[in-house]
Amino acid sequence: MKRRHLLSGLAAVPALALLPGCAALSSNDAPVGTGDLGLVVERARGTLALVNTSSRTLLAEIGGLGDLSHASVVFSRGGASAFVFGRDGALTRVNLLSRRITARVLQAGNSIGGAISQDGTLVAAQNYTPGGVKVFDATTLALVADIPAVVNGKASRVVGLADLPGNRFIFSLFDADAIWIADLSERSRPVITKIENIGHQPYDGLVTPDGRHYIAGLFGEDGLALVDLWDDKPRARRILGGYGRGEAPLPVYKMPHLRGWAVAGRQAYLPAIGRHEVLVVDTATWQETGRIAVAGQPVFVIARPDGRQVWVNFAVPDYHQVQVIDTKTRQVVRTLQPGKAVLHMEFTPRGEAVWISARDDNRVSVIDTQNFTTLATLSMDAPSGVFFTSRAARMGF
Amino acid sequence: MKRRHLLSGLAAVPALALLPGCAALSSNDAPVGTGDLGLVVERARGTLALVNTSSRTLLAEIGGLGDLSHASVVFSRGGASAFVFGRDGALTRVNLLSRRITARVLQAGNSIGGAISQDGTLVAAQNYTPGGVKVFDATTLALVADIPAVVNGKASRVVGLADLPGNRFIFSLFDADAIWIADLSERSRPVITKIENIGHQPYDGLVTPDGRHYIAGLFGEDGLALVDLWDDKPRARRILGGYGRGEAPLPVYKMPHLRGWAVAGRQAYLPAIGRHEVLVVDTATWQETGRIAVAGQPVFVIARPDGRQVWVNFAVPDYHQVQVIDTKTRQVVRTLQPGKAVLHMEFTPRGEAVWISARDDNRVSVIDTQNFTTLATLSMDAPSGVFFTSRAARMGF
Repeated sequence: MKRRHLLSGLAAVPALALLPGCAALSSNDAPVGTGDLGLVVERARGTLALVNTSSRTLLAEIGGLGDLSHASVVFSRGGASAFVFGRDGALTRVNLLSRRITARVLQAGNSIGGAISQDGTLVAAQNYTPGGVKVFDATTLALVADIPAVVNGKASRVVGLADLPGNRFIFSLFDADAIWIADLSERSRPVITKIENIGHQPYDGLVTPDGRHYIAGLFGEDGLALVDLWDDKPRARRILGGYGRGEAPLPVYKMPHLRGWAVAGRQAYLPAIGRHEVLVVDTATWQETGRIAVAGQPVFVIARPDGRQVWVNFAVPDYHQVQVIDTKTRQVVRTLQPGKAVLHMEFTPRGEAVWISARDDNRVSVIDTQNFTTLATLSMDAPSGVFFTSRAARMGF
Repeated sequence: MKRRHLLSGLAAVPALALLPGCAALSSNDAPVGTGDLGLVVERARGTLALVNTSSRTLLAEIGGLGDLSHASVVFSRGGASAFVFGRDGALTRVNLLSRRITARVLQAGNSIGGAISQDGTLVAAQNYTPGGVKVFDATTLALVADIPAVVNGKASRVVGLADLPGNRFIFSLFDADAIWIADLSERSRPVITKIENIGHQPYDGLVTPDGRHYIAGLFGEDGLALVDLWDDKPRARRILGGYGRGEAPLPVYKMPHLRGWAVAGRQAYLPAIGRHEVLVVDTATWQETGRIAVAGQPVFVIARPDGRQVWVNFAVPDYHQVQVIDTKTRQVVRTLQPGKAVLHMEFTPRGEAVWISARDDNRVSVIDTQNFTTLATLSMDAPSGVFFTSRAARMGF
């Protein structure tokens, strides 16, 4: 299955000739769907592992993806195509049913993620080098819009990119202390709304599950920036200002990932940077309502789809552990050790299981979220991110 | 595409021989997914219309489904199979890619809906005649569990069936004033929890999107029953008691559908039975926080996935209208007339469009939810329910 493809700069590569095989047929000859498929990034060798979350099996490996360190994935509206954002600036489209690369463009020098529009027609990539956001047609990967993030003559790195209702994208400018909203209702003429005075050095962001609030973490100060996107003139306000005040900061081993921040019921569960704590915030007042002591510096803090549990993994040296918080009691109810170097966790669509990657043990564990038994263990090469097709139907993923 | 199949009582029909065709291949030979597929019930002729919500087209019709009045549909975890609950007591499995019936059982005399378990392995049907719930294996349609709803020697009709986390199902007993929870963790030995003193004649129910609360409407009195499923010993409490008190009731032309009740942000929007009002309830206190006057007796009250809008259709004689409530201002911001006898509405997965069936105009309209333009009109024969595969990834659908 492994192929190598020449990158061809910014032009879209035509779809590769595909064998018209019936990859979608199951053993009993009834065609199977894409709702229970997913991809695991095997970062060391530029390969994606195709998995099925019903049978809990590894179906195939798809190679030739390039540099997949810190890679992320979004899915087409139909679920058959994945768009892979590589650290090397490549945007690659993979068909999960034919198990082949169908298009690939080198769109930047250094990229750290992307998003797909509400209607599935546009794919956006956020870039470190040269900065800015590029928007592509999901069908052809042709460039639709180029949005340089230049403020006062200086290009900024872009982080925290997410989709919003109405074919809009929101993102943060790390070097320009700003949050921008790009409206691509007219796809080739994006209308940019710029929000300033947000705080210093936004390093990542997320949209709440209802698409109403955008939160950017601030590297340059103790607190976060919150934007209510339902306001007529959205602006940023500071939340959790000085949450670590008066205490000596610990060295930060790994920046938390904000996209994984959890909104469970009325509370948001947020990783405290450089602290062994998860912060709890009321999403109406945006005031802190509690802190939960955990086993290390949290990286991903993710709610089970029903919000009853929040799962947390950690930065080195505590990254062999995963903790489960019961959101009713706000207690840690379970500490698991699913392997060395736990990098990511992904819930099945309705949350009966969670898939956890342990890079240095070369395996992904499937854990029952009700009784914490291990349902399956899949051998993979240095697995990192885990992405299921059910993300296609959700905002902010 | 139309076939007729003999019903064979309660035994599962073996999967039909299928042509090993490549129904899943798109025009450019890249296989397509199932994430943007859906079914529209053409109730008069026992036919399902297969649609694609990306291209907004009718792909095919699948016949031989029997009596589809009041039919409903749930989807397999993978998205390729639909389970159709017919009024005549038939449970039929249809493959959306081969566009054929793959299994069919006559499981009751009179059925009004069903649900699929969290892990997708079990399909449950709720029955009027002979009452009770039957649970089937999703792969074979073999009977797994038969749960008669008998109280004091009398069989009860079952309504308001929904899935809960942990392969449980919850449902209401219309004739026995009870709510039961069936835990199928051990699939052939269901454990039943019975909740009594819930109020008189529960006629339908829903689970909130987070799976935490179950609400049953009461036909026999003015109010609703609420169960907090996170309680150690779940019990029912009355909410909105006497919401129509002191006013002469209007004749009720059609019972509202509770499964469509909308939870948007912290508020639930509920149809007032026999009144031209939508009730607004705070989901923390479960106290009424407002009423919104609308054009008729509401039937479905459904939130757009982001919760910013709530769409309402109406009972006769106002069922040519649909109204849109802005949840920020709680004002009706638009009144549409999408056709005669509007029976159902379904949002696309991320809510950029809504599909509305107008039975007596034999058409389904696709409406842009941001600017209310009509994006497409599809001709269909007496369309009623509209069901998209994205339901597979959600609780309570």
